[in-house]
Parts: sequence; C-alpha cells; structure tokens
Amino acid sequence: MKLEFSNILIYGLGLMGASLSLALKKKGVSAPITGVVGSAKSKTKGQSLKSADQILTSEEFSSTRSWKDYDFIIFGIPVDLTVKLISELPTDFSGIITDLGSTKKEIIRAVETRFPFEHNYISSHPMCGSEESGLEFANSSLYEGRLCILTSPKNAKPGVQDRLKNFWRFVGTATIEISAEEHDSILSYLSHSPHILSSIMADWAANQKTVKRYTDLSPIPLNGGGFRDMTRIAGSNPKMWAAIFDSNQDEIFRSLSDFRDRLDIILEKLNPKNTLDPKEWERFMEISRRSRDFILKNQDDSKKN
Amino acid sequence: MKLEFSNILIYGLGLMGASLSLALKKKGVSAPITGVVGSAKSKTKGQSLKSADQILTSEEFSSTRSWKDYDFIIFGIPVDLTVKLISELPTDFSGIITDLGSTKKEIIRAVETRFPFEHNYISSHPMCGSEESGLEFANSSLYEGRLCILTSPKNAKPGVQDRLKNFWRFVGTATIEISAEEHDSILSYLSHSPHILSSIMADWAANQKTVKRYTDLSPIPLNGGGFRDMTRIAGSNPKMWAAIFDSNQDEIFRSLSDFRDRLDIILEKLNPKNTLDPKEWERFMEISRRSRDFILKNQDDSKKN
Repeated sequence: MKLEFSNILIYGLGLMGASLSLALKKKGVSAPITGVVGSAKSKTKGQSLKSADQILTSEEFSSTRSWKDYDFIIFGIPVDLTVKLISELPTDFSGIITDLGSTKKEIIRAVETRFPFEHNYISSHPMCGSEESGLEFANSSLYEGRLCILTSPKNAKPGVQDRLKNFWRFVGTATIEISAEEHDSILSYLSHSPHILSSIMADWAANQKTVKRYTDLSPIPLNGGGFRDMTRIAGSNPKMWAAIFDSNQDEIFRSLSDFRDRLDIILEKLNPKNTLDPKEWERFMEISRRSRDFILKNQDDSKKN
Repeated sequence: MKLEFSNILIYGLGLMGASLSLALKKKGVSAPITGVVGSAKSKTKGQSLKSADQILTSEEFSSTRSWKDYDFIIFGIPVDLTVKLISELPTDFSGIITDLGSTKKEIIRAVETRFPFEHNYISSHPMCGSEESGLEFANSSLYEGRLCILTSPKNAKPGVQDRLKNFWRFVGTATIEISAEEHDSILSYLSHSPHILSSIMADWAANQKTVKRYTDLSPIPLNGGGFRDMTRIAGSNPKMWAAIFDSNQDEIFRSLSDFRDRLDIILEKLNPKNTLDPKEWERFMEISRRSRDFILKNQDDSKKN
C-alpha cells in the first residue's frame, strides 16, 4: 500500500509523534516527514535518533514555514496546545489534519469554531500511550495492533474519514468512530481517572509511616508486582496529564465520584464492626475478574481454575 | 552451599509452593521434597510437571504420614487453612516450620497459642505472588532477587531465625524481620488494599454504559496499558484473597479509609464548580511520581525530563 501524502508534518515529536514518524518510515513511506519539537535540545536529540526526516523547533517552524507547505498535518502535542494551534490554521487548508489528543470535547469545539464550514479535520486517539514520554522512548511498533478512536467534528468533508481510516490501517491500528462526548466519558473510566487513582495510591503508600520506615530499612523494595503495576502510570508526564485533567474535568469528576461510591460500599462491609463473609468476598473477586475479562476481551480461560 | 534438611514437606503446591520446590531442585537440593495438594486432579498435574519428588493429596497425607516424618515444613496454603493446621502440629516438633502466608497476625497468634513454650516456627512472606495461581504457573526463578519478610512469634528457639535466613538466602531472596502488626499494616498498603481497589476498578469500568457499549462494538479492547496493568491483580485467585481480606480486615479498613480521604480531597478540587489550576496538577503528578520512586527505590532518573 502506498500513502497518498507528499509532505507530512508531525507537529510534536513526543513519544507518540516520534513513534508514528518511525513507523511510517519503517513501512517505506517516501514522503518527507517534518517533525516539530519544543526546544533546541530536543532537536539535537531527535536528529541523532533520526526521529524524522527534518526536525524544526516550533520557533523555526513559525518563522520559516507555513501550514500550507504540508498536505497532512498531525498534532502530537498536549490538548491545550492543540486547541491553541487549531485557532491559527488556515480556514481553506486543503490537506488532511488530525491530532493524537487524549480528550476530544475541547479539540472538537475548537475545530468547529475555527471551521464553521467544510474542512478536512478529523481527530484521532490511538490507544498506545505509555508512562514514558519524549522522543528517546519512541519505537516504530508502538501503534501495531492497537485501536485508534476517530472523532469527527461537524462539517468534515465526505471522504476525509475514509482517507484517515486508510492511513491508520496502514500504520497498523484498527479504528472505531466515537463521538467526542462518548470518547471523553469512556476515557475518564479507562484512562484519566485510573491515572489519578494511581497517583493517589503512590502518595498514600509513601506517606504511611510503617511503609516509610521499612522502605528505608529494607535492602530492596517492599512491594510486589501488584503495587508496581498499579502505580506505573503515576510516573506519567505531569505537564501532559495536567492538560488532560483540565480538558476533561467534568467527566473525571463524574467517574471518580462513581468510584468513590463503590469504595464506600466496600468500606462499609470492611468496617470492623461487621463480620466478613468470605463467600461474599470470593464473589466480589470473581465478578471483578469477569469484569476485567470483559473490558480486555479476554478469551483466555486457562487461569480460571 | 548445602541445605541442612533431610526431608522437606511443602504443604500446598500452589504457585508459590510449587515454584519453591522447583527452585530447590534447580539449586541441587538432594533431600526429597514431598508436596501436598488439594485434589487428585492437581496430583496428576503436579506429577506430570514434576512439581515435587513425591505428591500426595491432603487425604493421603493425613492417612499415611505424620508431621514428624519431616524436618522442614513449609505451608503454602491460604492463611485460614494455615491457622487450622498449626493447631494440629505436634508441640514437640523438632524440625523447622514456616509458611508463605500473606498476613501475619492470625498466624502468629495461632503459633503462640499452639506453642506456649519453645518452638521452631518462624513465619515467612516472600514478596513474589502473582495474579496467576496453581502449580501449572510455577517457575523456578520466582523467588530470585525478591524480598522475604520474616516474622517471629514469641518463644521461637534461638538459632531458628538464622537457619531460616540461610534457607531464604539459598533460595535467592533477601530477608528483613518485621513484626506481625507492622507487616499487616504495610501489606494492607502495598498489596491488600491495592487488590481491592483494582477489583473495584474493573467492575466500575465494566458497568459504565458507554464503556460497555463500545467494548461490545470495538474489534479490539478500548483500554490502553494503564488500565490493563491497574486491573491485573483483579484477576487474582478469589478464594485465596477472600482469606487474606478476612484475616486483615482492620488494617485494610484503616488503609482504605485513608485512601478514601485522599480521594475526597482530589474530588473536591475536581468539582466542576472549581477552576483547575494546571500548575497544581503538575505538582500533584510530580509528587506522586517521586512517591512511587521512593517505594520502588528507583534510582533511574532517565524518565524525569
């Protein structure tokens, strides 16, 4: 398969943007890929890692290039910055535009405001982030086998969605169309609130005095794999996540309130004035296991005995 | 190094017990290892996997063997069952006894009740569980490089602790001595409550109607790696975990209440009537990351940029 684009701009060469650039080159895309980074330091790093065919700082980009030099623009930057740049796009841009943003309502609102008539912008969210950030962690197979959620603003031209779907299929991801509201609600459950819970957990444990004391005394960490895995995403990029929380505050509040209600039910059962019924807890664990299998579409029954 | 024991009993060949058996054999222990399993089916499975030199069902064990046939007994069964068997041990047992239990207060109480005078029982907790259970998941390197917490009941004979430390060092784990109360408090933060939070999370997400609808519609799972990792331990063995919750109810209640208080503070900040301060959220993520690094004794600063 050949890509139809002749000049690709990936604005933001973080983990996602740089991995996309590497994936395209690995798949033999001949069109030049320009990557935009935030600092001279990142530019040097990106050049030595060959993160894109050409790398510019955002300052160099704005003083020497125009959006119309490209026929495919992909924003790989935090949501707040994406929203800002959308307001600067030429309204008669004829190429395709997308982003890799983690929340959609604000981006879609910005697109619909900037382009009140026909346009070529459809938003993307490939589900392949990591707690690592920065182009030095990029890898060409990050997108392989993942899901990319597509969200269409009003007035996207017919055909744009198919072209973008083809692009993502080329990269190796499956696609599904989900509205901005539904996307942000789903993501608050499957990503944003879990990030907050993971961060709370790291802090909660690290501030408990016995945990603290023995962590200092022990030659190796006290925790097992469960705690390590549950707090992995507490190590995520603070700036990027602050922007995500800000742009999806309502949904995160709603889903975390729902979580708190479920926690309160469990806490009431655990109250030392009550006697636990082990059978009830087995059921609780059993149902949760099935819930997890549902979300993960787990067919594997080997560990169910 | 040579092990001093001549006849080893691992009562309970689950993931932990069977892995310990394989580890000892791999390290060249010549003493025969007898493993006890719960069912004829597990016996057949264990025999085909060579999980121990000899495998008996618990019925065969009680009708044909006595505790005194062995000079080293290791319980690899749930805490409630361990407590029950401790009450049946001969009070003049001269070999060493330990367990791999995940909570300590009940086990230590049982030991101190059964052995009011001198005895050879010191409790162990190697920090290397997994969401997998059953001898079919056993592997000989499960213990390698891990931490084993030792908890001494009153009246353990001098010398027993050193012998057990030597044993665990031989297996490949570091050791640290922690009292039963402190152990159960630490573990409620680093393992038990995280398990409950993981299980709540799986259920919470799976019952949200938009998540449900699109999980059914999507060709592949909607979640990314964060959710998958955070709910991994929701897949743990229900029976074993019901026993853990029951035997550490007070500490789990205390630590989860502490978690709820922290969640409430975050919820108040996220309330849509308040405006988020992105700088504050960056700090929150930054501090949590440092907390995680503290617990995990992370020296790696490479992803701090």
